[in-house]
Amino acid sequence: MNTETFDELLARVRPVDQVAAAAAVVRHTRLTKPVGSLGRLEDLGVQLSAIARVCPPPPPEPVTIGVFAGDHGVVASGVTPWPSEVTAQMVANFCSGGAAINVISRLVGAEVVVVDVGVATPIPGDLEGLRQCNVAKGTANLALQPAMTRDQAMVALNVGVQIGAEAIAQGARMLVTGDMGIGNTTPSAALIAVFTAASPHLVTGRGTGIDDATLALKTSVIESAINRIVPGATPLDVVAELGGLEIAAIAGFIVAGAAAGVPIVIDGVISVAAALIATAFAPNVKDYLVGGHRSSEPGATIGMAHMGLVPLLDLELRLGEGTGAALAIPLVQAAARILGEMATFDSAGVTERDDGKR
Amino acid sequence: MNTETFDELLARVRPVDQVAAAAAVVRHTRLTKPVGSLGRLEDLGVQLSAIARVCPPPPPEPVTIGVFAGDHGVVASGVTPWPSEVTAQMVANFCSGGAAINVISRLVGAEVVVVDVGVATPIPGDLEGLRQCNVAKGTANLALQPAMTRDQAMVALNVGVQIGAEAIAQGARMLVTGDMGIGNTTPSAALIAVFTAASPHLVTGRGTGIDDATLALKTSVIESAINRIVPGATPLDVVAELGGLEIAAIAGFIVAGAAAGVPIVIDGVISVAAALIATAFAPNVKDYLVGGHRSSEPGATIGMAHMGLVPLLDLELRLGEGTGAALAIPLVQAAARILGEMATFDSAGVTERDDGKR
Repeated sequence: MNTETFDELLARVRPVDQVAAAAAVVRHTRLTKPVGSLGRLEDLGVQLSAIARVCPPPPPEPVTIGVFAGDHGVVASGVTPWPSEVTAQMVANFCSGGAAINVISRLVGAEVVVVDVGVATPIPGDLEGLRQCNVAKGTANLALQPAMTRDQAMVALNVGVQIGAEAIAQGARMLVTGDMGIGNTTPSAALIAVFTAASPHLVTGRGTGIDDATLALKTSVIESAINRIVPGATPLDVVAELGGLEIAAIAGFIVAGAAAGVPIVIDGVISVAAALIATAFAPNVKDYLVGGHRSSEPGATIGMAHMGLVPLLDLELRLGEGTGAALAIPLVQAAARILGEMATFDSAGVTERDDGKR
Repeated sequence: MNTETFDELLARVRPVDQVAAAAAVVRHTRLTKPVGSLGRLEDLGVQLSAIARVCPPPPPEPVTIGVFAGDHGVVASGVTPWPSEVTAQMVANFCSGGAAINVISRLVGAEVVVVDVGVATPIPGDLEGLRQCNVAKGTANLALQPAMTRDQAMVALNVGVQIGAEAIAQGARMLVTGDMGIGNTTPSAALIAVFTAASPHLVTGRGTGIDDATLALKTSVIESAINRIVPGATPLDVVAELGGLEIAAIAGFIVAGAAAGVPIVIDGVISVAAALIATAFAPNVKDYLVGGHRSSEPGATIGMAHMGLVPLLDLELRLGEGTGAALAIPLVQAAARILGEMATFDSAGVTERDDGKR
């Protein structure tokens, strides 16, 4: 397959279609329900129409969940209690279907594509189904030096582009982002701080579970890393300085979806960091994004708000893998199908309100 | 089919199984994820195990959504801008598959059973699939007199019992409650006020959309109706005094689910009122309930809190029909499947945290 490059796709991300959005607003008033009574599903239906450039929008099905895995040199600085080997072990678990994201994807009828972008240790077991796109055996330690070279960052962005473009070529009409990488809330918080201009103290959280001392260490590591970002740094400079490989790949995956005109449901704090990368390169990407789940990581909330996203779900998940976004898939599909399948007052012969309002 | 009566089923609602609940708590710590990282899905998995009396619980599938329809004499007092005829028209819309609940149920693979418990006007169109269990052509006007006789209330409770028992006999392993009835937020608010001892001013809301003057009228109607409830009134007395027919049927449907040991996902304010009826008759019912969606009606929030329920979704829906609860179905199914399908640390060969905690 002759995939376009990240730079080529950036130029293909169009503004969404406001005419189709307006048509969806009108259509919602004609469906057999009080006006506005489907709440956020109506907002979502308008967005899906704008993305698809037609109302009603086609159902955003089938769905591909990209789970991008990478390791992080910063783990050596003690920012997490989990060893890096867990990244490789969980990749194996994804490949054998035993992780939470596998269970949820089977339930909602989505395909999971597992991608090694930067796993550091050998992946055990049967790797059938694994997309082996390893750019490096983990990043360098961002506490001490740039996490990646600019070349590595661009290759990682293009890994995501390739996976996204392949999914769309195979029929996917919605993409969902997922991640696995021990230590990856640290580069994510750093990226969110840079792209939203928020203080590291505000965006740094406890990841999958750290104590106060580790949180203080993590925050100081992030502060020192972002202090190396010079004025005038490009988005690529920032990605290279802070990492990580899988985060860059998710950004590329998002851009591939936006360029193809399909919605992308983003998961927690790692996906938010990736989405901020994507929107830094191409601001129009923002209109293709759907916030799947409110992460308990503070940086996720700040990053979502920066992009104007309000997550659909708030179930106190803090796992990653794409689990929060995957759980939101049926909601997005419902929003599209309501516009496409519901009867109108005229077609169903239902009387409207007798006070002349709707 | 020889269905047990409402009274017989009340006696069969058992306390849920705390041993299975404890087993689920332990099993969650062995699954390949940080402890607690699936948030509210873990709480839900514990509840489903307790209900099923086994861990992991069987997936709560297939699902039957009962949509119970009835009219309300109180519409004559001007509590809503919609004419009663819309109830019958929407029942026809449900039967032909054009309403929001039909769209969502097709998406999530649930069956919709539409039940005429108390529709006042002729139902137009092809009624294939409609369960015709009409107890009366709407209730009397609760602003002026008891909405139902005690006999009517008991027959309506048993309509719900019959529909629920039939669904379970045909294989349903989860029930979802839905309603249609122009004017039915008025009796629902009245029922919530009585069963939670909350002020009518706190529980009365704007339904599908009314102005300030109508809200004041609606509140005063509710106040005068609940002032007729005498000390020592039984739950059946309260249901008869305030109505409505479809609300009583939903209460019976809930009791049928609890007696059969399956979870029941409840929708908005009408379902909350029905659940309060059911728990007034049999307090153990509460442990079988899952809150599907946070209704914008204030009484729904008060009623859910009274039963210890926190809704899974908050999408600003205010439609009824069971739409909010139906959207929550995949979340409940995910919670069960996570316990049943996820790998454990041992089975997947995943290393645990190196600080000895999990």
